[in-house]
Amino acid sequence: MNRIPTASDIEQAHERIKPYIHRTPVMTSSSLDELAACQLYFKCENFQKVGAFKARGAMNALLSLSREQRAKGVATHSSGNHAQALSRAAKIMGVKAYVVMPRTAPAIKKQGVKGYAGEIFECEPTLAARESTLAEVIEKTGAVEIHPFNNYDVIAGQATAAKELLEEVGGLDFIVAPVGGGGLLSGTALAAKYFSPSTVVIAGEPELANDAFRSLQSGEIELPSPPTSIADGLLTSLSDKTFAIIRELVPQIITVTDPEIIQAMRLIWERLKIVVEPSSAVAFAAVLKEKSKFVNKKVGVILTGGNVDIHNVGEKAV
Amino acid sequence: MNRIPTASDIEQAHERIKPYIHRTPVMTSSSLDELAACQLYFKCENFQKVGAFKARGAMNALLSLSREQRAKGVATHSSGNHAQALSRAAKIMGVKAYVVMPRTAPAIKKQGVKGYAGEIFECEPTLAARESTLAEVIEKTGAVEIHPFNNYDVIAGQATAAKELLEEVGGLDFIVAPVGGGGLLSGTALAAKYFSPSTVVIAGEPELANDAFRSLQSGEIELPSPPTSIADGLLTSLSDKTFAIIRELVPQIITVTDPEIIQAMRLIWERLKIVVEPSSAVAFAAVLKEKSKFVNKKVGVILTGGNVDIHNVGEKAV
Repeated sequence: MNRIPTASDIEQAHERIKPYIHRTPVMTSSSLDELAACQLYFKCENFQKVGAFKARGAMNALLSLSREQRAKGVATHSSGNHAQALSRAAKIMGVKAYVVMPRTAPAIKKQGVKGYAGEIFECEPTLAARESTLAEVIEKTGAVEIHPFNNYDVIAGQATAAKELLEEVGGLDFIVAPVGGGGLLSGTALAAKYFSPSTVVIAGEPELANDAFRSLQSGEIELPSPPTSIADGLLTSLSDKTFAIIRELVPQIITVTDPEIIQAMRLIWERLKIVVEPSSAVAFAAVLKEKSKFVNKKVGVILTGGNVDIHNVGEKAV
Repeated sequence: MNRIPTASDIEQAHERIKPYIHRTPVMTSSSLDELAACQLYFKCENFQKVGAFKARGAMNALLSLSREQRAKGVATHSSGNHAQALSRAAKIMGVKAYVVMPRTAPAIKKQGVKGYAGEIFECEPTLAARESTLAEVIEKTGAVEIHPFNNYDVIAGQATAAKELLEEVGGLDFIVAPVGGGGLLSGTALAAKYFSPSTVVIAGEPELANDAFRSLQSGEIELPSPPTSIADGLLTSLSDKTFAIIRELVPQIITVTDPEIIQAMRLIWERLKIVVEPSSAVAFAAVLKEKSKFVNKKVGVILTGGNVDIHNVGEKAV
C-alpha cells in the first residue's frame, strides 16, 4: 500500500487478519482505577499470537502481498517480536522468512523465530551491519522486505488493536500507547481519528530513549542517543511514514523513567495478574505520571506484549 | 450447614455468591497442549476477587450465617488468602472480621487484610499459639469462627469454581486441583460427582508437604512433617470434613517436587502470560509428571491464585 491507510484500509486489514489473530480481551481493575483516579481499560495484546501486537501488522503485510511478490519469501531485520511475528505469518502463508538478527540477540528470541521455521542470518550488533546484511540477503534470495514499522500495511494491521478497543469500550477520552518506531502509535492514532474522533491519542516513551519526544519538538526525526532503557522494544527511532502520521495526530508524548516503568509493570503484574514486558508498561507509567491530565476520564491503555525472560522467576521473584 | 454439600447446596451457593465474585475465564494454549500431549483447560482463579478462589468459600460462609450469627463478627486464623477473603466478605456484609496471624506473616498479607478493614491479632508463629489466640478472640468478641476449609459452607463455595469449569467445557476426562487443607479439592470432587460423573478428579501435592498423599495411603489424617515447599498455600493438613470427602471421591494424589512446581509455574507465566502463585502451579506440574495418564485426554486444571510478592520482578526477572 502506497498511501496513509484510510478507514476502509483499516477495516479491510481487520477482516483480512481476523482468522489468524486473537481478538484480545480488555481488562479492568478497580484498585488500579482508584490508584490512577480514572477509569482504565487495558487492551491485552500480551495475549496476542506470538505474545505481542506485532502479529497483526506482520500478518496484514503478508496477506497484502500478491502471490508473485511473496513467492520468493519475506525478509526483515529485527531482534524482537516482529521477527517472530513475520516468521509466523510467512509459515501460515507457506513462504520463507529470512530474519537478520544481531548475534547478541537472546537465545529465546532466536528459538522463537526457528520455532516458526524462520531462517536466521546473524550479524554484528550495529544498525549498519543489520542493514548491509539484510541487503545481501534480499539480493541473494529476491525476498520482499517487510519493515517492522515503516510500512503502511504493517501500520494498518497495528491499527486494528485500537479499533477493537474502541468497538468494545465506547466514549474513551484517551488512548495511551507506547512509542518506539511508531507503528503501533501511528496505527492507533489513525484508528481513533476514523472510528472515534473525540478520543485523543497520547504516547508514552522511555526518558532514556526519548527520540520521538524530541522529534515532536524539533519537527524532524531525531535519533536516539545511546539508548539503554529497560523497555527494549522501544529503542528505535521513528521513520518517515510513522513520523508524518504522529506529528499530525498525536498532541503529546509523555516520557517516563525506567524506575517508573518498572513500578507500572509491577502494578500490572500484581493487580491484573498478567505478564507484560517492560515496553508494555510504558503507557500505563505515562498515565500515572501525568495523573491530573487523566483524572476522572475514560482511558484506554494498550498493553503491547508479554514476552519477558522469566528464567529467574521462582527463586528470586516469589 | 451440617452435612456434606448436596448438588442443590452447591447450586444455591453459586447463586448466592454470584453477585460478589468473578466468573473467571478458562484459558487454553496450543503450545502447552503440545507439551503435555493433551487438551488443557485452565480455570483462572488467579483473576478471582482477592486474587484467589478463597473468595468463593468465604463469601458463601458469610452469606449462609443468620443475621444474629454474623452480628458479632467472624474470626479465623490464617496467614494466607483466606484471611483476605474473609475480611472482604465481612466488609461486604457490614460486619467485623478478626484475623489471627503469625507475627512473621509478610507485610503485604497484613496490608491486604487491613485494606478490607479486617482486625489483626498477632501471635507467635506456631499452630498452638494461633489456636489459643483465636480462642481468646472468640471468647472476647463472640465472633463466629469461619475455618478456612473444615466448614461445609466454605467447601460448597469452593465447589463453584469446578462447577463453572464443567459448565464451560463439556466432556472433561479429568480435573486436576492442588491439595492443602482440602477445601478446594473436596469441593471440586463434589462438583464433578454431581455435575459430570464421568470426570475423574485428581490432586497435585508438593512432595515436601505430602501429608494428604500419606493420608490416602494410611486411611488416617497424617500431619505434614516440617513443611518447607515453595507452594506455601498447601502446607496445612487435611481436616475431618475434607478428608472424608477426598478419601471417597479422589482416587489419586500425584506428588511433585519444588523444582517441578517452579518449572510448571514458569511455563504458565511464559505461555499463558498470566501471574500465578507457586501453589497454583502444582496441579499443572502433576499433569506434566504423569503425562502418560493424561495423554490425548481433556484435562481441566484449576489455577488457584495469583498472589505472589513480585517485589524483585523488574531488575531480576526481566
